[in-house]
Amino acid sequence: MTTPPPTVGAGGPAAAHAGSPVFDLHLRGKMEIRSTVPLEGRDDLSLAYTPGVAEVCEAIAADPALVNDYTWVANTVAVVTDGTAVLGLGDIGPAAAMPVMEGKAVLFKQFGGVDAVPICLDTTDTDEIVETVARLAPSFGGINLEDISAPRCFEIEQRLKDLLDIPVFHDDQHGTAVVALAALENALRLTGRLHETTRVVISGAGAAGVAVARILLAAGIKDLAVTDRRGILHSGRADLTPVKADLARDTADLTGRQGTLTDAMRGADVYIGVSGGTVPEEVVATMAPDAVIFGLANPTPEVHPDVAHRFARVVATGRSDFPNQINNVLAFPGIFRGAFDVRARAITEGMKLAAATAIADLVGEDLREDYIVPSPFDPRVGPAVSAAVSEAARRDGVARTAG
Amino acid sequence: MTTPPPTVGAGGPAAAHAGSPVFDLHLRGKMEIRSTVPLEGRDDLSLAYTPGVAEVCEAIAADPALVNDYTWVANTVAVVTDGTAVLGLGDIGPAAAMPVMEGKAVLFKQFGGVDAVPICLDTTDTDEIVETVARLAPSFGGINLEDISAPRCFEIEQRLKDLLDIPVFHDDQHGTAVVALAALENALRLTGRLHETTRVVISGAGAAGVAVARILLAAGIKDLAVTDRRGILHSGRADLTPVKADLARDTADLTGRQGTLTDAMRGADVYIGVSGGTVPEEVVATMAPDAVIFGLANPTPEVHPDVAHRFARVVATGRSDFPNQINNVLAFPGIFRGAFDVRARAITEGMKLAAATAIADLVGEDLREDYIVPSPFDPRVGPAVSAAVSEAARRDGVARTAG
Repeated sequence: MTTPPPTVGAGGPAAAHAGSPVFDLHLRGKMEIRSTVPLEGRDDLSLAYTPGVAEVCEAIAADPALVNDYTWVANTVAVVTDGTAVLGLGDIGPAAAMPVMEGKAVLFKQFGGVDAVPICLDTTDTDEIVETVARLAPSFGGINLEDISAPRCFEIEQRLKDLLDIPVFHDDQHGTAVVALAALENALRLTGRLHETTRVVISGAGAAGVAVARILLAAGIKDLAVTDRRGILHSGRADLTPVKADLARDTADLTGRQGTLTDAMRGADVYIGVSGGTVPEEVVATMAPDAVIFGLANPTPEVHPDVAHRFARVVATGRSDFPNQINNVLAFPGIFRGAFDVRARAITEGMKLAAATAIADLVGEDLREDYIVPSPFDPRVGPAVSAAVSEAARRDGVARTAG
Repeated sequence: MTTPPPTVGAGGPAAAHAGSPVFDLHLRGKMEIRSTVPLEGRDDLSLAYTPGVAEVCEAIAADPALVNDYTWVANTVAVVTDGTAVLGLGDIGPAAAMPVMEGKAVLFKQFGGVDAVPICLDTTDTDEIVETVARLAPSFGGINLEDISAPRCFEIEQRLKDLLDIPVFHDDQHGTAVVALAALENALRLTGRLHETTRVVISGAGAAGVAVARILLAAGIKDLAVTDRRGILHSGRADLTPVKADLARDTADLTGRQGTLTDAMRGADVYIGVSGGTVPEEVVATMAPDAVIFGLANPTPEVHPDVAHRFARVVATGRSDFPNQINNVLAFPGIFRGAFDVRARAITEGMKLAAATAIADLVGEDLREDYIVPSPFDPRVGPAVSAAVSEAARRDGVARTAG
């Protein structure tokens, strides 16, 4: 007997939204649990539950690694948020964050075959989040942190990586970084630029900005300026958080650049916006010829594509209604699929770079100004990313099985 | 693209168990996440995920009760354990407990249409379990505690009930109690006994024993002796935990009974074993004529049915291979279904009693010595229990909707 949940009362609070396609689709949520074993009679029950299940419990008690063979754990990720930085909506709390976490969970399954459980936490305290996730960890094969505000997200991720021997991945940082790098690699190829000599400006030094900067450095970009609301991050500033101070040393300190975003943009080859601000047209106009502009804020890019196209050769956004959508869904399902396939202990820098290369390479000979990243619905994406990530995990020594 | 998880390597640790029906069934676990919405193209994605989902988030931020209409939360229960009292296996830890929690989850779905997520915690500290579950609570519509050892389970359940406004239910206590009461009601009917004058002995004062005792008292049983390893609980004993001391006052203190289990059994009408010990045949022989014997320990009942039948008229066990199986699955799926259908704030004593009555009443005119409870596969069970539980929730003032 599978009783459906009750219909929502016609007079209930939900009635206000009836008829809206978005709300109609969300009625009763977007996901469910399904059994993968038969449960039709006593014999089924005696295998899947008592008394048979006791044999499996005893085997795992004797050899804990067997939990990965005989439960769903090794294929399951917790999508964890505290609701403090949800989409562009900010700190809306754990309940209001749930529709995004469910959305993430169904994308994990659809594009990576990964089972994902949304966990919305009723705390925003760094220590409490870390200890809570660590206590949950035996239930999951990986932890995907989501929509946790900076700078807490950096410490939470690092401490969990130190504590746990399963993949821990803050998608707002690394998912965005992987896809931005993939897009940038193709934009550089298209405009004939070299990593060593390309001048890049990133506006925004939150979760995404810091991670994009780090992956560009790892990929060989040398001349990088990251700006926050007060301008370019450099060690002459007294107002930097520890994360920003570290980043300043590895970016503008090396070139001596200081000043405002306007100063940074003059002559820049590439602009990557992850700030939610806007860049005036006259500032965009000062960029180098054949510029590359990624305005990733949603729903309002830092530079509108119509403006960007007046001055740039390659333009990308985070939106699905313009070409070149920088969409995390190109990365996170395949990254966890690839990590899970080899039971990786962690997600390394090498695995992220491999994911970016795999995404960029799928574009191949079709590379054009308006096609620098594949579509999320390109069926090659998930398998290509997961294969590259598994291979990198083996190379980096974090794979536990051959996959 | 939905990539299946990798097959287990032929040389891996799992190879040792290949060919076992139980282990083969458990390979890669027993459950998965499924999307309930289409995700086939950009339009689907823009409703289920960004940008559409933001509207739903904002509506919930403005009216948090809408989380119950537009996410899976209101139909989802966390099945939480610390792995300290798993089946009869004891403290085997959180990883080894997972197969049981997955089994529970698939039964929740199969028999109640309830989505259940197994959560195995890496802590056995009472304070830590309480605070961890409280922090997870926004993600779930209810909490099913499972296989947590006594006496910690009592405090954990009570504190969570005090903290949360969603159902909190320790199934080892209350699921067992509900089904034991249902069976006892029919056994009393069959043997022509009255609640007021029936002498009942419960051996075992752990999670199940305490809860069975409490529900029998609530149902009108007056002469009840509960025993632990040292004999009958009574206030003359200096070694009682607070929970046992409370129970002593409401049971043997009222009749003045003291002594051993053997003393308690002499002339008793009903024996309910939830101890895992054994009762010698010569002690069983001292019970009243037309006795009722429930030996619920699994897999070895306190009184083997062959022995019990020599002295008793009605015999029940926890096993599926004898008649009259006292199986929690008769109760917990329908109890949560009924609570969720009216968005109950809690599971009250009235809701548990209503569930027991509904289960007992399904036997109806078919009542016989070897048929005092319905089969778990009787399709009437879930709907009957859930309807009775919803009705009781409304009566007890804990229903938030009409259902």
